[in-house]
Amino acid sequence: MQRHFDQDLAGLKEKLLTMASHAETSLIQAVKALVDRDDVLARQVKERDEVLDRFEIEMDELSINLLALKAPLASDLRLITVAMKISQNLERVGDEATTIARRALELNHEAQLKPFVDIPRMATLAAEMLRDSLDAFVNGKTDQARGIIQRDKEIDNLNKQVHRELIGYMLEDPQTITRCLNLMVISKCLERIADHATNVAEEVVYLFEGRDIRHAAKATETPAA
Amino acid sequence: MQRHFDQDLAGLKEKLLTMASHAETSLIQAVKALVDRDDVLARQVKERDEVLDRFEIEMDELSINLLALKAPLASDLRLITVAMKISQNLERVGDEATTIARRALELNHEAQLKPFVDIPRMATLAAEMLRDSLDAFVNGKTDQARGIIQRDKEIDNLNKQVHRELIGYMLEDPQTITRCLNLMVISKCLERIADHATNVAEEVVYLFEGRDIRHAAKATETPAA
Repeated sequence: MQRHFDQDLAGLKEKLLTMASHAETSLIQAVKALVDRDDVLARQVKERDEVLDRFEIEMDELSINLLALKAPLASDLRLITVAMKISQNLERVGDEATTIARRALELNHEAQLKPFVDIPRMATLAAEMLRDSLDAFVNGKTDQARGIIQRDKEIDNLNKQVHRELIGYMLEDPQTITRCLNLMVISKCLERIADHATNVAEEVVYLFEGRDIRHAAKATETPAA
Repeated sequence: MQRHFDQDLAGLKEKLLTMASHAETSLIQAVKALVDRDDVLARQVKERDEVLDRFEIEMDELSINLLALKAPLASDLRLITVAMKISQNLERVGDEATTIARRALELNHEAQLKPFVDIPRMATLAAEMLRDSLDAFVNGKTDQARGIIQRDKEIDNLNKQVHRELIGYMLEDPQTITRCLNLMVISKCLERIADHATNVAEEVVYLFEGRDIRHAAKATETPAA
């Protein structure tokens, strides 16, 4: 009985990893669509969002069925509820990537404000945090999970820096305002994706150490749009 | 046994309602702090955020204990997982209210851009949606829940309108840019609070009709910051 259940739990993890890989692809492609001014790619990201929506619903169904049918042990129960929360965060990553893609479509119609440096850097950091948080989940690496929570500050700072720089552009030339607002939204989306990776990392610590560290060091809210 | 469990579930609902009332107070006071330029009130909102954080952790603990100890029926199980999701949304409402309060503190140090009309209107609508979504949860009113999902569009439109108006100000007078950005963030926070009320409403439909309507009519992302 428990062996069957272990297989079910392994299936749940497997599904979550597939979902995470879709979310990461969306993030990377959304920023690539911006940097390469690639409308086709941006539209693909928007389409992939439906896939992530479906994953979230399926993950919930699977989890609730496992909870209902098997009367799981306390530790398994924690695993299932954590899997539901991680899935929710991954779905939100898809939403943020979709917003980036939408804003990229708008920006691609106008002259480029400046070469992109910080935004691709933020995207790389966020994608790494996401990947590492899922790895920490699958392999029970709570130290790695705690490290991710620290790395979140770096993206917060980059977001603040981007925000300040864009305000400078706006003040200097009001013609850039719409473009700057779009870029502020994109930067904020990346900062939020890193927040989702952080949420996953916090759930991993809770799962393996039984300690709820959410809100323990709530980051001060960042200024970008 | 089931009678005891019913009492436990009633306790869970009760706790959620108390939490919702804190979230609503935060929302209303944050906007009041902006409109009345009241720094003391803004700081109170920031402090109340910790209360909501604690509620979320306690709601999770309570829910997981109920799942673990009682091997609940399928319908009760759904109620418990929905309660966890609603609690998460209420905690986020607290986060948004805190952001509004922070931005109000910044705005209170500068001359007022214009009389506030749309923002208090959005706050009233969002608070009503939140209250009605919890009422729908407690009383199983799925029609009311569906109505809330419709009302979300009104706030989305108000947010777009505020956004357009503020871009106008920025273009006309770059001196207003920082204030406009703060107001855009506040407007977006209110739009997000309405999204959380909508999430609660969708969970209510799922709980009482067993139908997952999330993402069914995904609103197009709104342009404000």
